[in-house]
Amino acid sequence: MARPGGRTARVRRAVLRATGDLLAEVGLSGTDLATVARDAGVGKSTVYRRWGSTPALIADLLVEMADESSPRSRTGSLTGDLRANALLVQTTLDDRRQGRLFAAIIAAATTDPDTAQALERFYDTRITEWSPCVDEAVERGEAPAGTDGVTVIRAVSAPLYYHRLTRADPIGRDRAILAADAAVAAVVAGVFA
Amino acid sequence: MARPGGRTARVRRAVLRATGDLLAEVGLSGTDLATVARDAGVGKSTVYRRWGSTPALIADLLVEMADESSPRSRTGSLTGDLRANALLVQTTLDDRRQGRLFAAIIAAATTDPDTAQALERFYDTRITEWSPCVDEAVERGEAPAGTDGVTVIRAVSAPLYYHRLTRADPIGRDRAILAADAAVAAVVAGVFA
Repeated sequence: MARPGGRTARVRRAVLRATGDLLAEVGLSGTDLATVARDAGVGKSTVYRRWGSTPALIADLLVEMADESSPRSRTGSLTGDLRANALLVQTTLDDRRQGRLFAAIIAAATTDPDTAQALERFYDTRITEWSPCVDEAVERGEAPAGTDGVTVIRAVSAPLYYHRLTRADPIGRDRAILAADAAVAAVVAGVFA
Repeated sequence: MARPGGRTARVRRAVLRATGDLLAEVGLSGTDLATVARDAGVGKSTVYRRWGSTPALIADLLVEMADESSPRSRTGSLTGDLRANALLVQTTLDDRRQGRLFAAIIAAATTDPDTAQALERFYDTRITEWSPCVDEAVERGEAPAGTDGVTVIRAVSAPLYYHRLTRADPIGRDRAILAADAAVAAVVAGVFA
């Protein structure tokens, strides 16, 4: 895909890439504006003027991550759609760079309210993308009327994030499928309606 | 309850209390051995000699938290037991001090392997306490044979931790009940067997 051009866009991409790399490699404590500028090959004054703080960098990184994240799958069944969602989350969190990046951002959000708000907006974007798959399941008669898509999509993600944050071993494909199938069972039983 | 006495035990309690308070109030970055010693009213050399590092303090705090955590409820039904578990986790995470403490420890675990290992041991202890409620449900015929209690207990906790770490609003009692009921539906459907 051709990237939208211009120097401003190129600078932003380089700075956000450096921010993400630093967060993934050394965590929040090593992610400061001067290091980001150096790693991005961008003048320090540009980074200070345009972002001004590490939370502002993380917030912008989350905007870019939401913009560039993949559209939802449309498999034709609720189980298929939720498994696709679970596998997307699992491969992201099991990926070395991406998994460490999410862990670092979630850790940063525990101490910084601006980061917490940006993280909440990121998940809102992703959930708005995916939750219509639950509405479609209701239309197809696979789920009870009034099933809350937002709660269902969060129910699929939750065990995968919980595993990533509380255990050292990878999540793995089987746990992703299990998370999706458990959510489907709860949907069918009417728990989320 | 009478606390086991002696100066060593008193020092440990004071030091771990100060560690927990600092983690809850200022997070990992403000939790150093000198501040812990000052807040606990204990000599710095004692804290350096006995614990030696912040991760060691956090690990010992997690041992104390596991030792002092409540025994599981026995309500006579799987739904009752899992709802009791969910409400225990929810009230802990919605409590200002405890919720911030868990968030800080989980954040610390993302950058420190020793803290991650101590956190994993803490959850193992809690899951070992609670998972027999699933075995009892199997014996009563409420759950399919071979249902994995560990996975079930983790499935109940996951949405509550995920909410705490990715949203600013409290979890609340309703989401706790929902987490338990969703797990029961998945159990009954045989997803965890």
